Amino acid sequence: MGKKIVIVGGVAGGASVAARVRRLDETAEITMFEKGPNVSFSNCALPYYLSGTVKNAADIVLMTPEKFQQRYNINARTETEVIDVDPEMQIVTYINQRTGKQAQQSYDELFLAPGATPILPQTIKGITNANVFTVRNVPDIEKLQNYLVDNSIQKVTVIGGGFIGLEIAENLIKAGRKVALIEATSHVMQPLDEDMAQILHKELVDNGVNLIVSDAVTEISKDEVTLKSGKKLATEAVVAAIGVQPEVTLAKKIGVHLGETGAIAVNHHYQTNLPHVYAVGDAIEVTNMLTRKKQRLDLAFPAQMEARHAADHIYGRTTQQRGVLGSQVIRLFNLNAASTGLTEKQCDEQGIEYSAVTVIPKDKVALMPNVHSLFLKLVFGYPTGEILGAQAIGMSEVDKQINVIATAITLHAHVEDLQDLELCYQPLFSTTKNAVNFAGLVATNILNGEYKQVPVSAVRQLVKDKAFIIDARERDEYAQGHVKGAVNIPLSEFRDRLSEVPKDQPVYVHCLTSLRSYNMVRALVNLGYTNVHNIVGSFLGISEYNYYHDLVDDRESIVDHYKFDLD
Amino acid sequence: MGKKIVIVGGVAGGASVAARVRRLDETAEITMFEKGPNVSFSNCALPYYLSGTVKNAADIVLMTPEKFQQRYNINARTETEVIDVDPEMQIVTYINQRTGKQAQQSYDELFLAPGATPILPQTIKGITNANVFTVRNVPDIEKLQNYLVDNSIQKVTVIGGGFIGLEIAENLIKAGRKVALIEATSHVMQPLDEDMAQILHKELVDNGVNLIVSDAVTEISKDEVTLKSGKKLATEAVVAAIGVQPEVTLAKKIGVHLGETGAIAVNHHYQTNLPHVYAVGDAIEVTNMLTRKKQRLDLAFPAQMEARHAADHIYGRTTQQRGVLGSQVIRLFNLNAASTGLTEKQCDEQGIEYSAVTVIPKDKVALMPNVHSLFLKLVFGYPTGEILGAQAIGMSEVDKQINVIATAITLHAHVEDLQDLELCYQPLFSTTKNAVNFAGLVATNILNGEYKQVPVSAVRQLVKDKAFIIDARERDEYAQGHVKGAVNIPLSEFRDRLSEVPKDQPVYVHCLTSLRSYNMVRALVNLGYTNVHNIVGSFLGISEYNYYHDLVDDRESIVDHYKFDLD
Repeated sequence: MGKKIVIVGGVAGGASVAARVRRLDETAEITMFEKGPNVSFSNCALPYYLSGTVKNAADIVLMTPEKFQQRYNINARTETEVIDVDPEMQIVTYINQRTGKQAQQSYDELFLAPGATPILPQTIKGITNANVFTVRNVPDIEKLQNYLVDNSIQKVTVIGGGFIGLEIAENLIKAGRKVALIEATSHVMQPLDEDMAQILHKELVDNGVNLIVSDAVTEISKDEVTLKSGKKLATEAVVAAIGVQPEVTLAKKIGVHLGETGAIAVNHHYQTNLPHVYAVGDAIEVTNMLTRKKQRLDLAFPAQMEARHAADHIYGRTTQQRGVLGSQVIRLFNLNAASTGLTEKQCDEQGIEYSAVTVIPKDKVALMPNVHSLFLKLVFGYPTGEILGAQAIGMSEVDKQINVIATAITLHAHVEDLQDLELCYQPLFSTTKNAVNFAGLVATNILNGEYKQVPVSAVRQLVKDKAFIIDARERDEYAQGHVKGAVNIPLSEFRDRLSEVPKDQPVYVHCLTSLRSYNMVRALVNLGYTNVHNIVGSFLGISEYNYYHDLVDDRESIVDHYKFDLD
Repeated sequence: MGKKIVIVGGVAGGASVAARVRRLDETAEITMFEKGPNVSFSNCALPYYLSGTVKNAADIVLMTPEKFQQRYNINARTETEVIDVDPEMQIVTYINQRTGKQAQQSYDELFLAPGATPILPQTIKGITNANVFTVRNVPDIEKLQNYLVDNSIQKVTVIGGGFIGLEIAENLIKAGRKVALIEATSHVMQPLDEDMAQILHKELVDNGVNLIVSDAVTEISKDEVTLKSGKKLATEAVVAAIGVQPEVTLAKKIGVHLGETGAIAVNHHYQTNLPHVYAVGDAIEVTNMLTRKKQRLDLAFPAQMEARHAADHIYGRTTQQRGVLGSQVIRLFNLNAASTGLTEKQCDEQGIEYSAVTVIPKDKVALMPNVHSLFLKLVFGYPTGEILGAQAIGMSEVDKQINVIATAITLHAHVEDLQDLELCYQPLFSTTKNAVNFAGLVATNILNGEYKQVPVSAVRQLVKDKAFIIDARERDEYAQGHVKGAVNIPLSEFRDRLSEVPKDQPVYVHCLTSLRSYNMVRALVNLGYTNVHNIVGSFLGISEYNYYHDLVDDRESIVDHYKFDLD
């Protein structure tokens, strides 16, 4: 007889453990207990049911218990919850939720993969109302969709601007509903810095989402929500996508130690403090590859990776656990946004000295069809040049750039290494120098102090202070809209108009994408101007950054928003 | 006064030198001589003019001499050819092709960036006929298009199945013309191995290209071409896209040394043997990052990179020249094909011991819309596991996978490093485990001898030898088409039908994509079967590989080609 393997939880982590054990051991007796009705479903695909992108909720279930049995000889038991474990006797007690009957099963090795559960703050009045929903599994999304359809709901409020909240908002809009999205912090998508998130804010607003940031829901009633600011929004249904917490009820009950983050603590081999008890997936605490600090992570790939290593360990194989980056990507209407590693904000919080650059090349050679701008921000250690993180937004698949940088971080690269990286080029696929190369070149320049830069977020204050800002675009571009008070000295004219550039005060230069301003800044530095700054992101960045602020927070616009779009 | 910089050639390499010098030195006097009518054009975009994807040939010109002057104070002279150089006096002699007048100009530093010229073998009778064209610059493509349009040409023969030949063929088909493509070797696209190139063969045939491989044009007349095989094809125009050779006429004349490949030899700083004479771009010899051997390379990004380093050197900056990979990508009708590093064939030629794996995951989570198969082949050193190269084909942007692997090769990664690489995942963008992870996992298995595999190219012989082949797909899949003689033992039934699997002879297993066969092979190995092989690429790969062979070379099909497509 083979080993008796018991797995608690049958989604990404649990199902991966089961499949891996079977590949390593044809004789193992594998039992997987899942308290929900489905094993191995794609929770990342759930929001797409709301818009009909995924037609049938049943399609979201990737494997049935029958298939697990037939193909892999794995006993997958749904609607069956493990309620207790005797670690000494190596026995689990489970309850069949349909029959209410309890039973026991012994194990040689136990794997905990219970996942995470949505946070529902009891401080929000009405959070348990019948019109409040969470989205974590297939029954959840069916329940929400049925409620919306059966009651012909038009107005929905989504709480939380993370992945799930944004994807729910998008799919509800696509289904023709009116959506308000409430985010408690200053911007959606915490894996992005505020400047990059503004681009998503614009996309949400442009697509009809009533976006409200820096505010919170305090009360939910049958037909409205009340915000902390006092604002009231008519709403018929609420989706709470505030975040998740590790499901550690069973773990705590049986004496499994939790880590500093409140998730299950594991060692290098994904073993808990209890002998023969492993844990993987959203419920465990992992180590950040860059900060070396503990953190939680709710992503599918790391869960599968952890499952493989944990299963390998019981068969005497060497495990690796080299830390996580949090690489992620999201599609939001016409935009894709991806990131990996640390944001500027995280560096600040961790006390890491860093610098950051943003480049905005086109996503293809400009003369090809369907060309759009691609925003790529690179965060790197100062003075080391170590690559710490990257964020990209554009209409093309920007995970292309972020995957390269995630690979570079994993393999300990520095910004200098990105300059000459030989990536695939063809005019339909990228610019000759890839955005990654541009970012590496600019970052190396900044690292070497070739010139100075200021971020787009500084422009509002510069305008107020009446700083000397040069707009290096052509006259016709300037005429269509420009930063208030900026002096138009096109790159094509500036060598004849050098006398207009003051030597006794700071000079800030921008163009559309920073390409022309970069050349002007270089020329000025070479001519002995010592206080010249390139405005990172230039007019595209400035416009994106201020679009939402202008619209909502500050009617005193600093730029005219003539036909501004990401192209 | 600044340095006097003279540049011979004004496309990728030359224009990049000019722009870089200007950024480093505002006072430099920069003169760029181009014998053609345009500087800084996108030669990679030329074929797209034939289909109207690029509407105006003028759009292909990225920068005019006027813009170079206005924006960068660079004197760009078109239709002006440098015909001699006096390296001792540091003077170039040039001729204005419009006026025929010669003049001289002195330099402090000279850059040779003359590019490459199309090969036109004089052994082909009629190669200089008026109906034979090459495509290297804007006048070339205009001349070809005008000829085709003015003479209402229907039948065109393209010689050469490299980038240019394939892109010309595709764009001619899109323009409604009839196209024959003649490739002298056994397959198109030499950066791919034969098994991967078969997928492109199918795409060409499916889209109406009359593809002929392993044959060559020997004679061209007004209305037909004659092939080495004796075959004759009615044709009204011929595009010769046989390849290019470095343009070294001037270099040889002035005493610049050529390397073993016949291209200009340069040192680490891109200096030639002559003092103050640099060379960059398609005309120089570069070093392969993996084989350390000299080679030529006709790609735009390396040319730009070389230009930057060469320009940097004259200003005392440190240069790097770490070798090239040849990363490339092409779009061909509905498919994208990308590659980097070495092919199996190159490894064979170089005497490098290697192994290779092919994985065929979907390009997105299977339940999302527009999901297709993605073929990824990974070539790696044996027994070292060093990543040596990769090739990918699919409907998604497969440069995403190849760029990651190019980065991994550059940073000296091994196949084990690809297993846990944390790339961006979301169901619309990739499978949970990226194709790169799958390739890393399978390669590590092969490296560790976990099981054996045979390539798709071996299946034809296995069928002839009546080998024991198990088709692990379900019964309904088998019924729709299968490898001749294969025994259908679905993974879901095989544990009950183990007795049908012989222990005394080799067993070969396939399914659709190798996922189910992999699980079956693992189980058989675990049960003590010692001679079990997974067929790499499985039914998808076998079908793709044999499609073109069946159609053209061998009417004795080994599989039924029921509705076979890349999805």
